[in-house]
Amino acid sequence: VACQNIIFDDRSALDEAEYAGDLRNAFSAATFNESASVAIEKISELLRRNTVEGVTLEHPELLLEEARGLMRDGEGCDTFDPALFAKIIDLYLRTSIKVSSTGYMARQFSSVVPITAVFDMVTAMAPQPASFYEAGQLANVADKIIAEEFARLIGWETGTSDMVTTSGGSLANLTALLAARNDRLNASWKKGVAQPFRGTPTIAVGEDVHYSVSRVPGIIGIGQDNILRLPLNDRRQICVPSAVALIEAARAAGQDIFCIVASAGSTSTGAIDPLDELADFARANGIWLHVDAAHCGAFLLSDRLRPLLRGIERADSFCIDAHKTLFVPALCTLLFYRDRTKSLGAFTQEASYVFDNREDPMTRFESGAKNFECTKRPAILNLWLVWAMYGPGLIAKKLEYLVDLTRDTYNYLSFLPDFEVVHEPECNILCFEYRPEWVPSERVSALQLALRDNIRAAGKFFISKVELEGRNVLRIVLMNHEINIGHVADLVTEIRRSADEIATLWSMDAVAQEVSR
Amino acid sequence: VACQNIIFDDRSALDEAEYAGDLRNAFSAATFNESASVAIEKISELLRRNTVEGVTLEHPELLLEEARGLMRDGEGCDTFDPALFAKIIDLYLRTSIKVSSTGYMARQFSSVVPITAVFDMVTAMAPQPASFYEAGQLANVADKIIAEEFARLIGWETGTSDMVTTSGGSLANLTALLAARNDRLNASWKKGVAQPFRGTPTIAVGEDVHYSVSRVPGIIGIGQDNILRLPLNDRRQICVPSAVALIEAARAAGQDIFCIVASAGSTSTGAIDPLDELADFARANGIWLHVDAAHCGAFLLSDRLRPLLRGIERADSFCIDAHKTLFVPALCTLLFYRDRTKSLGAFTQEASYVFDNREDPMTRFESGAKNFECTKRPAILNLWLVWAMYGPGLIAKKLEYLVDLTRDTYNYLSFLPDFEVVHEPECNILCFEYRPEWVPSERVSALQLALRDNIRAAGKFFISKVELEGRNVLRIVLMNHEINIGHVADLVTEIRRSADEIATLWSMDAVAQEVSR
Repeated sequence: VACQNIIFDDRSALDEAEYAGDLRNAFSAATFNESASVAIEKISELLRRNTVEGVTLEHPELLLEEARGLMRDGEGCDTFDPALFAKIIDLYLRTSIKVSSTGYMARQFSSVVPITAVFDMVTAMAPQPASFYEAGQLANVADKIIAEEFARLIGWETGTSDMVTTSGGSLANLTALLAARNDRLNASWKKGVAQPFRGTPTIAVGEDVHYSVSRVPGIIGIGQDNILRLPLNDRRQICVPSAVALIEAARAAGQDIFCIVASAGSTSTGAIDPLDELADFARANGIWLHVDAAHCGAFLLSDRLRPLLRGIERADSFCIDAHKTLFVPALCTLLFYRDRTKSLGAFTQEASYVFDNREDPMTRFESGAKNFECTKRPAILNLWLVWAMYGPGLIAKKLEYLVDLTRDTYNYLSFLPDFEVVHEPECNILCFEYRPEWVPSERVSALQLALRDNIRAAGKFFISKVELEGRNVLRIVLMNHEINIGHVADLVTEIRRSADEIATLWSMDAVAQEVSR
Repeated sequence: VACQNIIFDDRSALDEAEYAGDLRNAFSAATFNESASVAIEKISELLRRNTVEGVTLEHPELLLEEARGLMRDGEGCDTFDPALFAKIIDLYLRTSIKVSSTGYMARQFSSVVPITAVFDMVTAMAPQPASFYEAGQLANVADKIIAEEFARLIGWETGTSDMVTTSGGSLANLTALLAARNDRLNASWKKGVAQPFRGTPTIAVGEDVHYSVSRVPGIIGIGQDNILRLPLNDRRQICVPSAVALIEAARAAGQDIFCIVASAGSTSTGAIDPLDELADFARANGIWLHVDAAHCGAFLLSDRLRPLLRGIERADSFCIDAHKTLFVPALCTLLFYRDRTKSLGAFTQEASYVFDNREDPMTRFESGAKNFECTKRPAILNLWLVWAMYGPGLIAKKLEYLVDLTRDTYNYLSFLPDFEVVHEPECNILCFEYRPEWVPSERVSALQLALRDNIRAAGKFFISKVELEGRNVLRIVLMNHEINIGHVADLVTEIRRSADEIATLWSMDAVAQEVSR
């Protein structure tokens, strides 16, 4: 064994006096308390602020310079500087999306139940890495409780299903599709996918599926070319008769469709695919049905909204982003398996030096062999916390309010002559176009993009746009229960104001072009 | 378009009075403040506590019952209950690993710099989902700053390399190996791995590689059978001459080794593979070299420790778990690419409806196309925060102290007749055996396991065990700068006490067996 003299011998070993100062200050209870006070004041201000705000976009190079300017010289910084900490929080909040403002209607990100944000601080200071029982006792127990609560809501018999918490929807979708691949393509985990199967392994997805799903064939070795994109109906759901015909034709041509991925709802429009009919077809044909219910899976908590998910109880797997519609901090995704024996299939390898070989009551509780992560944040505890302190009714109430408000927004916009709604809403997402009389049809799409940019820049409202069949439409996602129909009316006014501005700019451009000719 | 009458028509629409109570209370600044006060008091207590503690393991079924008992009935819970919140935090802390105690020497999990835990609360309340500039402005800017800081430490020329933040080391390893596969196996992203390549695609790894790496071939479609496990030398590093011979033989037999994964350091013993020699060999043979530097990559921050990583600057990719040795909350991993053009290779698909087609200064800053996640926690900001407020010197000082202390522990244990150190430490991980005279050599391994269990159950110290070549050895990971050689001496006493207890139990067992014969 060679000795590493260079590294270890030119030191004044373990001189406590030398290191103690900086380290002890930085890690002390006093610094913790002082910094927490600063942060709490800033967040309270934010929550009390009653302004209508979107997002303030800053030029990245200028922001980079400003951030660099806040960095102290690395040497000799031995004390906590509350003024600097306050400045950094201010900069952070200034450049954040204003999810707790009524002007925020852009995306599926949301404000969280405040106790969960506070608990995030606790779990950061005292970790319970959740993959192993020894390290994350309460986290693994909470997994079991939440799994049971959901099984009851779904209507699954106790003890027959399983749930795994993962760091995000992308990881949940990957995990489920790996379980599907390993289950349906014999020995693909051990021998790889370069072996003879019944046909070319292929995954079928709806046209509007999230990109985290449509990336999976590239990741798991099947290849992006082997995705079968299923056509949609006029509600932008998978059109089952056309889908069935396409899948059957693909099979006849030598493709082995071993998995169908449905959405509930889609990112673009919130469309919920016909899960009931897809489950019938999948089961009859030996195909694994996975549902990306990242957004709408939370409807399981509401007696009124649950029927929208009919059929999800017959899917082989589905996921819910708790950091979207269960209002806990990112990343927290729940992945459900109807058949509990399938949950060990995604990663069949044994991690012998991590997992104890002896099975005991503790190892039976831990999730490590079923999830991708080794160190895993105990994010499930935030959801359990909400359940424990308020009950699932709090979430159900909020979701019902948001869905109702979206429905009312749809009705309202339908009456306005200069607006055109693109679809009837199925959840809290709505796409529409602004079509004033002056805009020629070939510029409608360009106008929507200009409106998104112009409104975002004005800073009062923050809405998004999506591309549907190659044209831009405006999109709102209502995630804040403080928004009411009055704010929607204000948005309409803002859109009209913005369109007038754009009309002026465009006509000046036209004049300029005329002149330069 | 069918109308969803069932769902939407039996409601008393938008009755604010009906929903306002519960939701407004739960999301209010007052509830935030009140819950934060409770949490801060509990954490302060924890940080001020000066006890030597390990972990208190509870039977999972009993803990489940206790947790269920803390759940209020779901209906009508409209107010925040500070006493219940305090009870839940108490239960959480009681069942957590005591990373801020001097009795904790078990694993790579660590206490974090307190300001980063506080900042986690801020980023939970006001999200900056970090994959897109629009939503996470400061997060994307911090990515750039930290990338530049590290490039300087590594010795890479400005602008030639790239860094991506991912949610954990497992994801960083997967991402890097996908980039390697897509780069070296032509068209494998598009067409899958079931096509003719130069040979059978194979990944070579050291025998002690982390399971998140050895799982990857199963995930990416290459198959677990196509891992080549490289032999180790007596320091448990990849033995380069043997590795080269094995790789060359495998190539001759038709395997295409397109990627080698080295460790710095290994999970079991902290061994750092000979990166310099491996880089030479990989480059000469067109092989992608990835280094899993989850644990020791942080040594780049220290002038004294950096030489231990010599050669890492010539790897194609490597990762560092900032939530391990950079002392920020999980999950925060940095994935580095020497050649910036390779960072887009892991996920080559375009996500057209998420990413704007127009390239502008903002999209050039965002990481979305390079990382797996869609919603991504702005974890990089915690690292930037430490850098801004204390400078990297704080981390360097802590690491140097821990490495020195581990060295001193090695020297100390080497002198004790009843202890046997297994290896010279390369970082802050040390494996050893307790071998009192009375234990027969065939029961040494069983004794180490019994010691781990017995000491853990006694609750004063928390150490771990690993299996090396089929036998159990004890393992300590020194992550807390409050630990000094005095605590190590106390651990020695505890091990001896525990061994005496085990000896008594074992001799009673022997007597019982004698009697029952």
